[in-house]
Parts: sequence; structure tokens; C-alpha cells
Amino acid sequence: MSTERVNPPGLCPPAGFSHAVVASGSRLLFLAGQTALDADGEVVGDTLPEQFERALANLLTALRAAGGTPADLARVTVYTTDVAAYRAHARELGRTWRALAGRDYPAMAVVQIVRLWDERATVELDGFAVLP
Amino acid sequence: MSTERVNPPGLCPPAGFSHAVVASGSRLLFLAGQTALDADGEVVGDTLPEQFERALANLLTALRAAGGTPADLARVTVYTTDVAAYRAHARELGRTWRALAGRDYPAMAVVQIVRLWDERATVELDGFAVLP
Amino acid sequence: MSTERVNPPGLCPPAGFSHAVVASGSRLLFLAGQTALDADGEVVGDTLPEQFERALANLLTALRAAGGTPADLARVTVYTTDVAAYRAHARELGRTWRALAGRDYPAMAVVQIVRLWDERATVELDGFAVLP
Repeated sequence: MSTERVNPPGLCPPAGFSHAVVASGSRLLFLAGQTALDADGEVVGDTLPEQFERALANLLTALRAAGGTPADLARVTVYTTDVAAYRAHARELGRTWRALAGRDYPAMAVVQIVRLWDERATVELDGFAVLP
Repeated sequence: MSTERVNPPGLCPPAGFSHAVVASGSRLLFLAGQTALDADGEVVGDTLPEQFERALANLLTALRAAGGTPADLARVTVYTTDVAAYRAHARELGRTWRALAGRDYPAMAVVQIVRLWDERATVELDGFAVLP
Repeated sequence: MSTERVNPPGLCPPAGFSHAVVASGSRLLFLAGQTALDADGEVVGDTLPEQFERALANLLTALRAAGGTPADLARVTVYTTDVAAYRAHARELGRTWRALAGRDYPAMAVVQIVRLWDERATVELDGFAVLP
């Protein structure tokens, strides 16, 4: 398997994501959206950074259970109910990402939606990985 | 081709979806978003369950036309204008899913958006499948 | 590599997209969401058609930098803050698409979300491509 991150000069330099990820591998991993649910289905955390950390940890739990590592993540979509808060906490969210998932950033999109499955959930992450 | 559904113990037990799906196959199928349109482009159904059934049927029509079966579905995203109604009808939607697509659930995400292409549409499904 | 676009008779005839795209190739390309940012991170364009053109151009810049061509695009999701405006400008957006990306349409979904990363951004496109 090989994974290449592509960030061409014509685009705004990316911070915390890659503009494109090319991956060749024999297996494709599809990850369901994860919010900050604990194992009993309760939302953990009141603030966006707390929920982000748990949601990302959940995504990585699914990734690892399927045999992948964070460097295999090729695409992540972030659905949040509050992009303004996400931006206000961007440094902290970046630290959390690097602590849990490292610096091999996937291609990403962040969009503000109306609500998630749980009314208390403020952020959900889903993704794709390519496994060796 | 092989498809494995992964639901690790650390995550909330899934109902009607898989936390992760690993698939290896030679062909990847990308499915456009489907709402409850009939062949003439008119939205069919007034209630969310009616529209869900038609939208899912349309998704499966595209899937089958491309040579796939419901078990090949690896990822589905549900965009709806009303998650509260979706949850209120969850049992009925689950029955519809199993009747049309079986029990080999894809990795999923359900998000509430502002509106879909057709103002009357309340639910849209898109997806990815891996074909043998 | 081979790419097949599938538009079965049971579905509403597509205009400007494909209902399904089947692709076999050795490399998968994951494209981050692109809005109408210039290289300095400023949103370019006041109208939706202007922003759409720049966002699509950015997506194609990332695609080409990764070694792909528009015909390799298998899936595009359009997130917009105004589907009504998108529909009102559909002909113009279609012309822009064909001028920049040709007529080998990917599978698509268009959804109206609350907001994008930049408050001034009205449209974002992300996607997947399969490369030879």
C-alpha cells in the first residue's frame, strides 16, 4: 500500500487537513459517523472540544478494530451544529487531533448542519481509510 | 471479494447500521443521492416513512443496475430535514430497510440538513458499494 | 482502469450528474471540500455562480495535482447554503461544469447546510476519484 498527500501550490495552504489523499491498497474501510457517545449510548461532554475528543476517539476505535491506524485515514467529514465554536476552538481541536491521530492528515470537509442523531451531540465525524 | 462488518465492544452497540465495514473488491460503486422521486421526477409520499421507502428503493435500483446487491453496500449517508421524525419512525424505517435491503448493514451517518434539492423531499440517501 | 456510468430506466433521467458510477482502478483519490478560496484564503466572488466556478476550479486543481482528470471524478457532494439559488442558476452552473470538467458526470448529491467554514462561502464541493 502507498498513501500520498497532495497539497498543490495554487490552493490555500492547508492547516490540519490535506487537500487530496491518493491511496492504493487492497482493502477499503468505511467508517460510520461517530459522535461523543459512550458505550451505553450517552453523550459525553458539554463543550465542543470535549465532544470532539470523544467522537474522534470513537472513530479511531472503529478504525483500529478494523485493522487500521490513523495514518490510513484518507477522508474525514466533520458535521457540527456550530462552525463558529469549532473555529473558536480550532487550536485546541488541532492539539486533540494530533495527540490522538498524529499529523498524517486526511482530506476533510467541515459543514454546519441543523442537528445530529442525539439532540445533545454537537459534532460527528465519519471517514474512509485504505488498508494494506 | 470479501466484506467484513466490524462492531467493537468499546462503542455503543449499533442498531440498524455497522460501525465499520471493510471491503476488498475490484470495483467501487459510487451512488448518487436518491430522494423519493418517481421516474417523472415527482416526489412520492407525504410522510417520512413513505419517502424513505421510495428513496431507498431508488438507491437499490441504481445499485442493482450497476451489478450490485444490498449486501455490497458499504456506506450510506442519510440526509433528512427532520431527525426527530426519523427517530420517531425508527422502527418502521428499520422494517422497511430490512424488507428491501436485508440485514447486512452498511456504515451509516444520519444528519439533519436545511433542505434537499426538491423542497418537498424530506430524506435523501447516497452510498458506496464494493463489487466483486 | 475502467469507468462506467449507470443511469437505469426506473429512475428520473439525470441532468448534470450520473445515478451511479462504477470504477475499477488501482488508486483511490479522496478530495477535501473546496470553497471559493484563493491561494491566500480569501473567498472569491459574491454570487453563487462565481463561487461555484472557483470552488470547482479548486477541486480540479487538487484532482490534477494528484494525477487525475475530470473524467476520473466518480463522486461529488455539493454543500450549499442556498439550494433555491443553486436551482435558479442551474443552467449557468451546468455551463460552468461542462466548461471546466466536461460531460463525464460523477454521481452527485446536493444538500443545503447551515453554513460552511468561511461565513461568506455559499458553496463547497468535495469528491472521490479513481485513478489508473
